[in-house]
Amino acid sequence: MSGRKPVEYRDAPPAVRAVFDDIKATRQVEDVNNFWKHLANDPLTLKRTWESVKEIMAPGALDVRTKEMVYLAISVSNGCEYCTASHGAAARKAGMTDAMFGELMAVVGMANETNRLANGYRVPVDEAFNR
Amino acid sequence: MSGRKPVEYRDAPPAVRAVFDDIKATRQVEDVNNFWKHLANDPLTLKRTWESVKEIMAPGALDVRTKEMVYLAISVSNGCEYCTASHGAAARKAGMTDAMFGELMAVVGMANETNRLANGYRVPVDEAFNR
Amino acid sequence: MSGRKPVEYRDAPPAVRAVFDDIKATRQVEDVNNFWKHLANDPLTLKRTWESVKEIMAPGALDVRTKEMVYLAISVSNGCEYCTASHGAAARKAGMTDAMFGELMAVVGMANETNRLANGYRVPVDEAFNR
Amino acid sequence: MSGRKPVEYRDAPPAVRAVFDDIKATRQVEDVNNFWKHLANDPLTLKRTWESVKEIMAPGALDVRTKEMVYLAISVSNGCEYCTASHGAAARKAGMTDAMFGELMAVVGMANETNRLANGYRVPVDEAFNR
Amino acid sequence: MSGRKPVEYRDAPPAVRAVFDDIKATRQVEDVNNFWKHLANDPLTLKRTWESVKEIMAPGALDVRTKEMVYLAISVSNGCEYCTASHGAAARKAGMTDAMFGELMAVVGMANETNRLANGYRVPVDEAFNR
Amino acid sequence: MSGRKPVEYRDAPPAVRAVFDDIKATRQVEDVNNFWKHLANDPLTLKRTWESVKEIMAPGALDVRTKEMVYLAISVSNGCEYCTASHGAAARKAGMTDAMFGELMAVVGMANETNRLANGYRVPVDEAFNR
Repeated sequence: MSGRKPVEYRDAPPAVRAVFDDIKATRQVEDVNNFWKHLANDPLTLKRTWESVKEIMAPGALDVRTKEMVYLAISVSNGCEYCTASHGAAARKAGMTDAMFGELMAVVGMANETNRLANGYRVPVDEAFNR
Repeated sequence: MSGRKPVEYRDAPPAVRAVFDDIKATRQVEDVNNFWKHLANDPLTLKRTWESVKEIMAPGALDVRTKEMVYLAISVSNGCEYCTASHGAAARKAGMTDAMFGELMAVVGMANETNRLANGYRVPVDEAFNR
Repeated sequence: MSGRKPVEYRDAPPAVRAVFDDIKATRQVEDVNNFWKHLANDPLTLKRTWESVKEIMAPGALDVRTKEMVYLAISVSNGCEYCTASHGAAARKAGMTDAMFGELMAVVGMANETNRLANGYRVPVDEAFNR
Repeated sequence: MSGRKPVEYRDAPPAVRAVFDDIKATRQVEDVNNFWKHLANDPLTLKRTWESVKEIMAPGALDVRTKEMVYLAISVSNGCEYCTASHGAAARKAGMTDAMFGELMAVVGMANETNRLANGYRVPVDEAFNR
Repeated sequence: MSGRKPVEYRDAPPAVRAVFDDIKATRQVEDVNNFWKHLANDPLTLKRTWESVKEIMAPGALDVRTKEMVYLAISVSNGCEYCTASHGAAARKAGMTDAMFGELMAVVGMANETNRLANGYRVPVDEAFNR
Repeated sequence: MSGRKPVEYRDAPPAVRAVFDDIKATRQVEDVNNFWKHLANDPLTLKRTWESVKEIMAPGALDVRTKEMVYLAISVSNGCEYCTASHGAAARKAGMTDAMFGELMAVVGMANETNRLANGYRVPVDEAFNR
């Protein structure tokens, strides 16, 4: 199925190369991850996705490590293996230690548990939380 | 349906009161949230859930604010309205500002988007992420 | 939005009435639930869904109570409020006690927690489980 | 674990063969996919599932290509790799081009993103949408 | 909780008004939906989300009606009530008839069913789908 | 990435060995599953998770076979391959037959389908279910 074959830099049209170049410069890496190579089958989505990720993941009110840990948490919760692997690596690179990873997984697991307990008992939202 | 009626302190058996007392003392609040009042229909689950939450949400390698923001992120991603409301309030109490909330939601949204792009393009995990 | 208005028996075309009659006879109830009244906007889906539910939920290797509890468990896990309410009532009717409900919710919560721990730690399937 | 072994045509009981024959005739293929071979471990579920799929996926108010693209979209969103692969192939066969696939994935990703933004900001449904 | 209050046009800063104006002009509506009013609490996310939605939902290889139906399908599958209501309305406006809605829901339901059957039977991807 | 390497008994610190010993004694097995070996990277989470699982999965108002089937049902619904494999094996060990497995999967599939139909038609909860 087309769309499944990664697009390598050497074969990429200029619009794709421009995005790859910006990813490499921004992240200071020698090559882009498989995610971007596959997304390059749709240059418009590649560009929009990268620009959104770049803007969202830049340090702001939240630091990069926190953002990457949240990204990892969501990916784990959704069962996305690719994103669990890639954002796990990114979070480590941004300073997540083994201890932080362990606590992060504990929170992700617990939240998934109590989300269902709240659903199952059909708990009404406390008035105090709606103010 | 039984199990849907909250258990108030005045009607609670000693085992439930003990948990309610510990929640109130630990969080320095006057009453427990609806979640705990409903869970009190099953005293064993009430006790185990509270003890797990207390252990997991204590400050450690991650601070309380980060943990509450991750809890909120998962609840939003799962569409659990009760937990979105209660952990939104808890994260605010722990110091989450409007700017942090905005960035948190942006990361949650983006992660949910790229999780599906990775699924759809069936992107294989980069070897570098499996080391 | 059309599709949102329930179809009442008195206004229903013969094909819908036939399904409503079978639901009422099979379940020995005086009226069908809102679910069926809304689905009746698409008589083909109404018929197919009812026939599938009727076949699947009949007693077999698993008894009706177990089946209704599993249906409830999935609905809670997916956060479907309508199905949590309707299959909660159905499970009660089929004999689910308060104690069973409490244990069911505990299992649903725990499974959701360990599902994410397994995802997060990227645990490989034990060879013994693939035989 | 039994239930994991595919049932091949030559070993299948008559009830299973009848379904396999109908799938092959309807789709004009020489063999059925792994999905049906595994489902054949439960002949009743095989028959009911095939008959439902056959009815639902037939051309109607929506053409086959649109239906297969929606099927693919849901499978991607749920992270079901098997169904992503099989309905990706089916959608291609029904005429989905590379450009359509790219746009489809973009919509799936965006919907998953804004679903969470709506959850996180707890946006109330506009009155106009409830009419 | 701040972030929950909608931002009305009259109170909006220029950056938000510019986005609201573009939404109103593009969609030819007199006011924006609640979604945008809530998102306006974070002007950067408002702008990025609108620009992405505008680009993705424009007619291309897929027409607007198909795109809105896919958006609706995902929202229903995820259980996002706000998006189910808003994109249900948008799909109707783009030409989705009652019959199309019924068939769309049937496909969404069936895909969610067979996704789980494929998971449960642990069906391996057919080699033909990996080419 | 640390956290991905399993901890074997011979290399485990006393706190981990104590949990492994209890798992082996309780389940009367010679070695623990990969899940526990990976979780052992975080001894606190290992201990808490095991103690919770042990308490929840003990026979009570529900027998062990029913509990394991519910655990399997949730894991299948969430698309967690590891837990589908491990709890599939556990359910078999606790007496789940092929016929029970087939019916269980049928219920899981159907619940996932009707959950979405209820969402899509936005069916309001019947008053009778709120009493």
